[in-house]
Amino acid sequence: MKTLQVDLGERSYPIYIGEQLLTDAQCFIPHIKGKQVCIVTNETIAPLYLQPLSDLLIDAGFTLETVVLPDGEAHKNLDTLNLIFDKLLGSRFNRQATLVALGGGVVGDMTGFAAASYQRGVNFIQVPTTLLSMVDSSVGGKTGVNHALGKNMIGAFYQPQAVIADVSVLRSLPVRELAAGVAEVIKYGLICDAEFFEWLEDNIAAVMSGDARAQIYSVVRSCEDKARVVAADEREGGIRAILNLGHTFGHAIETAQGYGNWLHGEAVATGMLMAIDLSCRMGKVERTVYERAERLLKAAELPTRSPKDMSNDQFLALMAVDKKALDGGLRLVLMEALGQAYVTADFAHSLLEQTLDHARNG
Amino acid sequence: MKTLQVDLGERSYPIYIGEQLLTDAQCFIPHIKGKQVCIVTNETIAPLYLQPLSDLLIDAGFTLETVVLPDGEAHKNLDTLNLIFDKLLGSRFNRQATLVALGGGVVGDMTGFAAASYQRGVNFIQVPTTLLSMVDSSVGGKTGVNHALGKNMIGAFYQPQAVIADVSVLRSLPVRELAAGVAEVIKYGLICDAEFFEWLEDNIAAVMSGDARAQIYSVVRSCEDKARVVAADEREGGIRAILNLGHTFGHAIETAQGYGNWLHGEAVATGMLMAIDLSCRMGKVERTVYERAERLLKAAELPTRSPKDMSNDQFLALMAVDKKALDGGLRLVLMEALGQAYVTADFAHSLLEQTLDHARNG
Repeated sequence: MKTLQVDLGERSYPIYIGEQLLTDAQCFIPHIKGKQVCIVTNETIAPLYLQPLSDLLIDAGFTLETVVLPDGEAHKNLDTLNLIFDKLLGSRFNRQATLVALGGGVVGDMTGFAAASYQRGVNFIQVPTTLLSMVDSSVGGKTGVNHALGKNMIGAFYQPQAVIADVSVLRSLPVRELAAGVAEVIKYGLICDAEFFEWLEDNIAAVMSGDARAQIYSVVRSCEDKARVVAADEREGGIRAILNLGHTFGHAIETAQGYGNWLHGEAVATGMLMAIDLSCRMGKVERTVYERAERLLKAAELPTRSPKDMSNDQFLALMAVDKKALDGGLRLVLMEALGQAYVTADFAHSLLEQTLDHARNG
Repeated sequence: MKTLQVDLGERSYPIYIGEQLLTDAQCFIPHIKGKQVCIVTNETIAPLYLQPLSDLLIDAGFTLETVVLPDGEAHKNLDTLNLIFDKLLGSRFNRQATLVALGGGVVGDMTGFAAASYQRGVNFIQVPTTLLSMVDSSVGGKTGVNHALGKNMIGAFYQPQAVIADVSVLRSLPVRELAAGVAEVIKYGLICDAEFFEWLEDNIAAVMSGDARAQIYSVVRSCEDKARVVAADEREGGIRAILNLGHTFGHAIETAQGYGNWLHGEAVATGMLMAIDLSCRMGKVERTVYERAERLLKAAELPTRSPKDMSNDQFLALMAVDKKALDGGLRLVLMEALGQAYVTADFAHSLLEQTLDHARNG
């Protein structure tokens, strides 16, 4: 087991990354201060992992409640959030209560926001069950729910007491979801860690085939990279935006295709290539960077072309309503070297059009 | 105009207290960083003060939206909160937006929580329009909404950019609501400021009759007192609990009588006398403290007797479900001297029963 300490002053917390951690009481117990614990999970995860984790907590003497939410992004809203509050209040949970988020990003985001808001803040522990949530939600403190008019528009910055990333659970993850997580792993290499990118080029087969050591290293290195970026910008005013490499293009694809048809990580994979392509056209990076990224994404079974039925105009319209563009001028995360991303509103519209054409047609 | 700086490090903010501040652009403009401003108010306040404040902000060049909520504690819930998010997202408000809470405690609590949660946090300015909210909500950062199973159970600690307390608006306040605010003013004297208590004994008629200087002084001193207590305990772990003098008794009255039949401040007034009475019976304070408090509350036209139809058993049952008692043992805020309150679970049940009898029968 590896332990990574996320250093945020009095809000610091550890990330434990290893195998068989869901049955390791010592990962959980030191981070629970009261007697009341509520596990929040979803219908898909509950049959797989709820029982062993419940047993562990009951054996340790805690008063345990569980909330099983419906699965999927469509339920990530205030109404579903209220199901958590119903359970906590119905069970008379107090301010010393601890919530445990057992699931992927949706469960983590909602449970974290419930913890941030219940009696104005109780403790929570994150137990991510997808590769994407291990590398994306373990660091950064973003919690929240969607609104009919926008994703993640209601929420809080709120840190967990601990994150327990057990790569053993990735064995039950569909390969398409594993790949979607790998897209975010590759992102860290691209934006801030060229050495890690090279390691991934050599080890992508091991990561995809379920090799625990390779998966643990991928999660550790991704979390370290993200922690470094976030530490410089906890509440998201500046440099942290590089974490959105590929996301503005990707959100346009997700929106156009309907959420769930393209997984988030798949859309980001294609979006990252588009950002690199534009960077090449602007003369910021060599075309070989694009080719290496494309090869790596393909090895991870990720899409590298945008949908055939999306016109440039549709792309541009959807990119302009992306959350990061609400301020006015469209800003993009681009690359100036392998392992070095930057944020800019300074790019030629004609080159962007070329990138959109290229992404669709190759 | 008096300015009181609430010192909370990078979350510090000023409270402006004076007359005709609602039309004073210099109170508002320095605290708005973006171009988008949304005033949140309610149906009762809107006809009185929305127009002049809107004019001020439009004249200053801001993009202005307004949300007029239904009035009353019954609407302080997640559904009403969503009306604010609907407006903000429908108007494409960004992270530089500023919310302005124009109203009493309910509007302030909901707007503050909306600001804490919208895009994980935007700025807000509080413009309290009741004496209660001027002295109770200006300091402390408590925001939130009710849940069907409990008051203020969902929320955040979140600080405003500024509080603008314009005592001119108190002239339109019904005398019963003015008195309810005075109950909380008197509370500060009782719990931590004997000198202020004595000032109130001399000046209560001026405060009640609408004398601006006396009202400004009351708000300034109350906010100073509260800031001192809160500064020692921003996230409410210990000493801050003395701010709840009379509240456990008071909540029992409010619950038994139905919210709105007794105003919060009225229930707190009676509850404070009960806490002092119990303190007297325990030998902590002289009976003269009780008599002086009773005289002052009566001069402020506040009730000093609990409802005739509430039995001791009903009181005790309702006190045990008070939020502060969720941990187990019932803790009460009691007095050990005029201007000195403390929190304890150490009191004889028989004396508490005597206090309950006395409060009802005199």
